[in-house]
Amino acid sequence: MLDKIIKMTRRETNNTTRPVMLAIAGDSASGKSTLTKGLAEAVGSDRCLSMCVDDYHKFDRTERKTLPFTPLHRDCNYIDIMEQHLQLLALGRPILKPVYDHSTGTLTRPEYVEPKEFVIIEGLHPLSSKLARACFDVTVFLDPPEEIRHEWKVQRDCAFRGYTPEQVRADLELREPESEKFIRPQRRFADIVVRFAPIAGREDPPGTPLSAELMLRPTIQHPALSNVLTDDHRTAMHLKIMRDKDGTPTDCLHVHGHASSEEARQLVKAIWEELNAAGGPPEHIGQINPGERSEPLALTQLILVYHLLLQSNERNGN
Amino acid sequence: MLDKIIKMTRRETNNTTRPVMLAIAGDSASGKSTLTKGLAEAVGSDRCLSMCVDDYHKFDRTERKTLPFTPLHRDCNYIDIMEQHLQLLALGRPILKPVYDHSTGTLTRPEYVEPKEFVIIEGLHPLSSKLARACFDVTVFLDPPEEIRHEWKVQRDCAFRGYTPEQVRADLELREPESEKFIRPQRRFADIVVRFAPIAGREDPPGTPLSAELMLRPTIQHPALSNVLTDDHRTAMHLKIMRDKDGTPTDCLHVHGHASSEEARQLVKAIWEELNAAGGPPEHIGQINPGERSEPLALTQLILVYHLLLQSNERNGN
Repeated sequence: MLDKIIKMTRRETNNTTRPVMLAIAGDSASGKSTLTKGLAEAVGSDRCLSMCVDDYHKFDRTERKTLPFTPLHRDCNYIDIMEQHLQLLALGRPILKPVYDHSTGTLTRPEYVEPKEFVIIEGLHPLSSKLARACFDVTVFLDPPEEIRHEWKVQRDCAFRGYTPEQVRADLELREPESEKFIRPQRRFADIVVRFAPIAGREDPPGTPLSAELMLRPTIQHPALSNVLTDDHRTAMHLKIMRDKDGTPTDCLHVHGHASSEEARQLVKAIWEELNAAGGPPEHIGQINPGERSEPLALTQLILVYHLLLQSNERNGN
Repeated sequence: MLDKIIKMTRRETNNTTRPVMLAIAGDSASGKSTLTKGLAEAVGSDRCLSMCVDDYHKFDRTERKTLPFTPLHRDCNYIDIMEQHLQLLALGRPILKPVYDHSTGTLTRPEYVEPKEFVIIEGLHPLSSKLARACFDVTVFLDPPEEIRHEWKVQRDCAFRGYTPEQVRADLELREPESEKFIRPQRRFADIVVRFAPIAGREDPPGTPLSAELMLRPTIQHPALSNVLTDDHRTAMHLKIMRDKDGTPTDCLHVHGHASSEEARQLVKAIWEELNAAGGPPEHIGQINPGERSEPLALTQLILVYHLLLQSNERNGN
């Protein structure tokens, strides 16, 4: 019943500092940080706190060696404390967040974190319980095809975490049963499922950016995009009805990687104007690595910005 | 108004796992740990969590060197997080408590702490705000004469923390304005003020244990000690009306250091029987250091055990 209480409290509290909470869940190397980074920048770091909830480990790297599970297992994490901290942030309160140092594999000095107008929570487990889910206004699950995610993980862990490709692949195999049991089931609880992938059936030349598919479930109100989803922009993005994995009809927004950069940028600009935002679109949205940009990523980030502002307006009675 | 909400929630929640909360506040080296240790042992470590709230430092030892205040200053501590954790424990929830390592002066990996039937919170600041105070059922302030506390601090910090007497005295002088501003004002909010001191006007020989004076304020119900406060035990302990610092009449329990060990132990036994506790009185109550025992300390601890059990019975409707 705690999830009901937190829902009611969030609704009842007449507190304008109560943040809009967005969850971005997904498996290791599914693109959570990349998506979060541009999104936070688009909203503005003065208005937005972004935080990773993968630091609620019970054990450090050395301790885990003697244990039969990987960090993906619920029992490897203080899920109850994560839930508690999500509740506190959702009510506008500060927390003392645990910190896991990836470079040394140790748990270190915790960090004082205060919520802002928007709070983006990314991680492996943010949608893993009713209570955790009750803390969010919008929930996203990143769902790339497994072979693409594996490739991303090899690239990242070898480049930034000092592993060899063989080590990363062995680790992925070890984690697979726990991915299946603890991570992928969260897909079902997302308002938006985002999938970066090549379009099936098209033979796009190598180097074509991945397309994005955004399943927009009817669990929340989605922004009215009719002004931008015109025939002018159809090559870059269009909306289509399809069936969810369980058969439920749902809207699906397709953002095409094969569209020209010019078309995509016009659409980014059109959405930015829809948002009534000042200036031009932020420079870093769509950025994968310094110098590497994806227009489907930029458009996905903008749709999420749209959601954040929509929730914020609703809260303020606009 | 948060203090009202937490008070109401604690009263309304029909939750038998909600702990009895006891605060033991006092300045550095006022005897908090010594008092807490025997008390926790008397109740039984399986039923009792004791925790020090002096680990909510914002800064480590190196950082503090550049700052104009000592750990006694409110601004040197995450008082808001301490309040939050006290609320959570009072509602029967676990916390991830920050940890300050005294031996290295650094903030380290936090610790998962779950409340038990009894929670004893000792520290410098547990009664420093309305919200913190709202979390407790019984509150104690340790109030030894300053010259005795200074002596205790010199002894402890030289023996266990590697300081010289001169360093400790300089530190005490540095801390004095903050003791006055942040620590001593908490005395006013305690249900019980405990003072270990020689009895004024008596010329007891050197080596006589310190007496204890327990001011029992009418802010809570105190145990009915009429069965043990008989003429038989008058040499060891008696109750007297006196005036508080502000003139309010209040009860004061005097426990005499000059009573014979035999008399005191009989009284300990009588109180232990009053508590309907199994077996004999716990071996380690009254222990100051291994091999060094104080009967007034033992009796003070037993009075507090009495309070804990009284609160627990009240809660359970007995």
